[in-house]
Amino acid sequence: MKLDSAGLRVLSHEECLRLLSLTPIGRIVFTDRALPAVQPVNFHLDGDEIVIRTAVGTKLAVATRRAVVAFEADEIDWESRTGWSVTAVGRARAVSDPAEIKRLSALPLVSWAPGSHDHFIVIQAEQLSGRRISPEEPAT
Amino acid sequence: MKLDSAGLRVLSHEECLRLLSLTPIGRIVFTDRALPAVQPVNFHLDGDEIVIRTAVGTKLAVATRRAVVAFEADEIDWESRTGWSVTAVGRARAVSDPAEIKRLSALPLVSWAPGSHDHFIVIQAEQLSGRRISPEEPAT
Repeated sequence: MKLDSAGLRVLSHEECLRLLSLTPIGRIVFTDRALPAVQPVNFHLDGDEIVIRTAVGTKLAVATRRAVVAFEADEIDWESRTGWSVTAVGRARAVSDPAEIKRLSALPLVSWAPGSHDHFIVIQAEQLSGRRISPEEPAT
Repeated sequence: MKLDSAGLRVLSHEECLRLLSLTPIGRIVFTDRALPAVQPVNFHLDGDEIVIRTAVGTKLAVATRRAVVAFEADEIDWESRTGWSVTAVGRARAVSDPAEIKRLSALPLVSWAPGSHDHFIVIQAEQLSGRRISPEEPAT
């Protein structure tokens, strides 16, 4: 069992992808006017790509264009102090190819915010890392 | 009612602080070797400062030293598609003053990860912003 610098169990690449595929909400981390920014979004895992649906011209759409971003999802239970967290880091791209837009539009992914959302952001998960929090972990 | 570029309701400064004070878990967003990084942590809101307890030498402790970071907390219900998200941006500092360490040690804040956690990171929430997600919002 591999542990990180904080003593948490390191998840395998496959386990990270499996957890992401089961989770509807994550947080995209980007830079907005030279400051760190973070925004929760619902998403769909398409192979090893994270697909987000938004509107043209939103802060998110503008700031993530051709940027390296992080994407995090977690499920942590406060009462039992257990849970997991997965982070992907990779380049974000705005989808412009009509065939790809058509394919992504068919995914089970609806934006929650009001208005039209025909703009897709895709993050290629180049680096994927995950941790599991468990009170049974040995203190090392 | 103020709406943002995605049509979500903008929360007041006071509402952001109130929600943070009621939430045990958030995510600290920082830069790790020039890449965006994000890590879930439990925290305590002390006035308008976010207090995190960690161990000396963790990646988090090293990477956030004198850095401008973001901190995000949210509570989003997938079924009803309702919830909120609050983000703070500000400078992080490692607490070194023994009197302050003593005071912070008395806060109701216990690190979940195994091992000794006598290192405190404090984020001054200089910029605070929040959004509420609600299916009743008008599409503008």
